[in-house]
Amino acid sequence: MTKSKTVLIVAGGKGERMNTDIPKQFLEIHGKPILMHTLDVFQRYDAAIRLILVLPAVQIDFWKELCKKHAFTLSHQIVAGGQNRFQSVKNGLEAVINSGLVAVHDGVRPLVSVETIARCFDAAEMHGTAIPVVDLVESIRQLTGNGSQSVDRNTFKLVQTPQVFDGEMLKKAYEQDFPPLFTDDASVVEAIGIKIHLVEGNRENIKITTKFDLEMAETLLKFEDLKI
Amino acid sequence: MTKSKTVLIVAGGKGERMNTDIPKQFLEIHGKPILMHTLDVFQRYDAAIRLILVLPAVQIDFWKELCKKHAFTLSHQIVAGGQNRFQSVKNGLEAVINSGLVAVHDGVRPLVSVETIARCFDAAEMHGTAIPVVDLVESIRQLTGNGSQSVDRNTFKLVQTPQVFDGEMLKKAYEQDFPPLFTDDASVVEAIGIKIHLVEGNRENIKITTKFDLEMAETLLKFEDLKI
Repeated sequence: MTKSKTVLIVAGGKGERMNTDIPKQFLEIHGKPILMHTLDVFQRYDAAIRLILVLPAVQIDFWKELCKKHAFTLSHQIVAGGQNRFQSVKNGLEAVINSGLVAVHDGVRPLVSVETIARCFDAAEMHGTAIPVVDLVESIRQLTGNGSQSVDRNTFKLVQTPQVFDGEMLKKAYEQDFPPLFTDDASVVEAIGIKIHLVEGNRENIKITTKFDLEMAETLLKFEDLKI
Repeated sequence: MTKSKTVLIVAGGKGERMNTDIPKQFLEIHGKPILMHTLDVFQRYDAAIRLILVLPAVQIDFWKELCKKHAFTLSHQIVAGGQNRFQSVKNGLEAVINSGLVAVHDGVRPLVSVETIARCFDAAEMHGTAIPVVDLVESIRQLTGNGSQSVDRNTFKLVQTPQVFDGEMLKKAYEQDFPPLFTDDASVVEAIGIKIHLVEGNRENIKITTKFDLEMAETLLKFEDLKI
């Protein structure tokens, strides 16, 4: 039997990095706020998926106003985030009752494809974990104590979201204390000894953190191949 | 005294990856072929820089026709490339008489900024080597024998071009036999025991290898902040 599905969409941006008063998750691309695009794509993947949006407490009223303004009626639950991403995910998990499969997704990745989401959930159903990755197309160097060195880029992958896990496993992983090296949910789960299963992401699935990314996302949303 | 400056612009694309008959370096963005944008930006950096374009032998006539068609009159020398990038750079270096400082740049990186080029040449004048790098904005994982593991992305940098070196040093490095792990010029130079100096690149300086990149480049060239 297929497990129930939940996605925690985590948006913690305060708008500092892009030098704007409006946190980046609320900036408009293609006529509506980034977060609405993100919620929409999960709903397109599966109309029955449970959508939980984790937002800084101070932004919740603003978000509700935005939903009214844009006549955005897609049903979703709102949870107040914490001091950092780890705490925000933890708060989101407390709202997950029927665990099943739980995805954690960056609110500022509106360009994830339905196919990527499907690959992640399908693989997590089979393996318990699944995260989307893509090849590095540029060389990378590793910083060392007194300089840097070439490394073989073919042995590395860029990590995206949604990261999908068995819900009980994810909850257990988030019972750990918060260490500074938890850069994503996979690293949190990995720290309790679980192996992470990799699936193919989609290159357009960029994380919007700068004005440069915003311009790219705008273009990509217009790009006919995406059919969004 | 300031050293003489040369840039080898290396374009080896055969057009296979983008499923087009025209090699990617000749595709038009913003009204003219990518390679012309690339040549132009180096000339804007320093009108006295020597421009050497390394092209597959079979593409040279086509390029000359393109230059006529676009009334592209910027003076540059054309050198026939080799079987792989290593051999192409080596061929280009044979055309460098007065070594001074030599930059090697990917033909399909038209969005390098004049400031990035200046930082590379200035640092190479002082240190003998300089390559532009930018932060990784996404998590990366390292593939291991039987899976993969989280790594700290803050200890890695994405590598761009132009990579600038003392010309004699670069020629010496290219006397080595070609090993498969030479992913960029810095790794070739590093293999003869030279330390590589890192400077800040610019994020827009993407390598155009897919249709996705081409769309981004088109947008970025229109982006007023770039003033191109």
